[in-house]
Amino acid sequence: MPASAIRHCTACGAPVVYRVPAGDTRPRAVCPHCGHIQYENPRNIVGTIPVWEQQVLLCRRAIEPRYGLWTLPAGFMELDESTEGGALRETREEAGADVRLDGLYAVINVLPAHQVYLFYRGQLTSPRWHPGEESLEVRLFHEAEIPWDELAFRSVAQTLKRYFADLRTGHFPVHTFDIS
Amino acid sequence: MPASAIRHCTACGAPVVYRVPAGDTRPRAVCPHCGHIQYENPRNIVGTIPVWEQQVLLCRRAIEPRYGLWTLPAGFMELDESTEGGALRETREEAGADVRLDGLYAVINVLPAHQVYLFYRGQLTSPRWHPGEESLEVRLFHEAEIPWDELAFRSVAQTLKRYFADLRTGHFPVHTFDIS
Repeated sequence: MPASAIRHCTACGAPVVYRVPAGDTRPRAVCPHCGHIQYENPRNIVGTIPVWEQQVLLCRRAIEPRYGLWTLPAGFMELDESTEGGALRETREEAGADVRLDGLYAVINVLPAHQVYLFYRGQLTSPRWHPGEESLEVRLFHEAEIPWDELAFRSVAQTLKRYFADLRTGHFPVHTFDIS
Repeated sequence: MPASAIRHCTACGAPVVYRVPAGDTRPRAVCPHCGHIQYENPRNIVGTIPVWEQQVLLCRRAIEPRYGLWTLPAGFMELDESTEGGALRETREEAGADVRLDGLYAVINVLPAHQVYLFYRGQLTSPRWHPGEESLEVRLFHEAEIPWDELAFRSVAQTLKRYFADLRTGHFPVHTFDIS
């Protein structure tokens, strides 16, 4: 049974059972009353690396988990938006900042969380930002100032490490890696 | 209300209502009985472009939608697997083929379907394949043989177009695009 257990059918409300449906290979939440199968899949977290004059904009979290720690602006991708659209929205919501996207930078499987992170590089269109409701503080950091011990997530730390390494070469390939 | 409407609470089975929770900006399926919020997000489709001597391996679908049309091996990413792991699994399941991945090739937002496709380039490790349960037929195609009018999905057609164009230059950047 998956971690985020489904206990009732979303179609009719009856208690579900976990079994492997015909033609499938994995246990699913199956409704014995109406037959509906409720699938669970990983969710995407979309965000940006907002850049201004070789500095990166980070947000200090005003929410759990990792309240008070620093992160890149990012959040759950919503229905009816693209990965790019979601990354721009999250940057606006959490950092009060507008960026021009330079392209996909990292695709990270965070296996224990059932999440896939997609980070885009972005140039701030102006030196203006302000903390959104989910941020305590938003500020620019030069590489030497990054609070490595106070970053909220390994995905963010590993993305920033790769970003600053690439900044020295000026070459920004798409990075793909797993966190398990 | 999203297309794939949730009607009952997955935690307690009571009928849900759609409203914007406190601190949120979008209507969600909220349970008035137990307070559980059920989020819906886009799902990832992961697959490969399996290559053998400048030919691409395609599968003819034995399932709906698009029964009888040709596609790249791909399917829903599952919990507890990475995007790469899912792409390899789908290639094995649908095409009976093993590939060695060469890297991420395309990230495609298919907005009407609430899906994000992630395609990886892969070299077939041997000239062996066989149709899985979801395929009628599996075979290699040179570019000139691709059945463009009998491809199952626009995401697949656009990925193949880009792939064969890149094959002429030998340079394979990561492509990101939307289908709306």
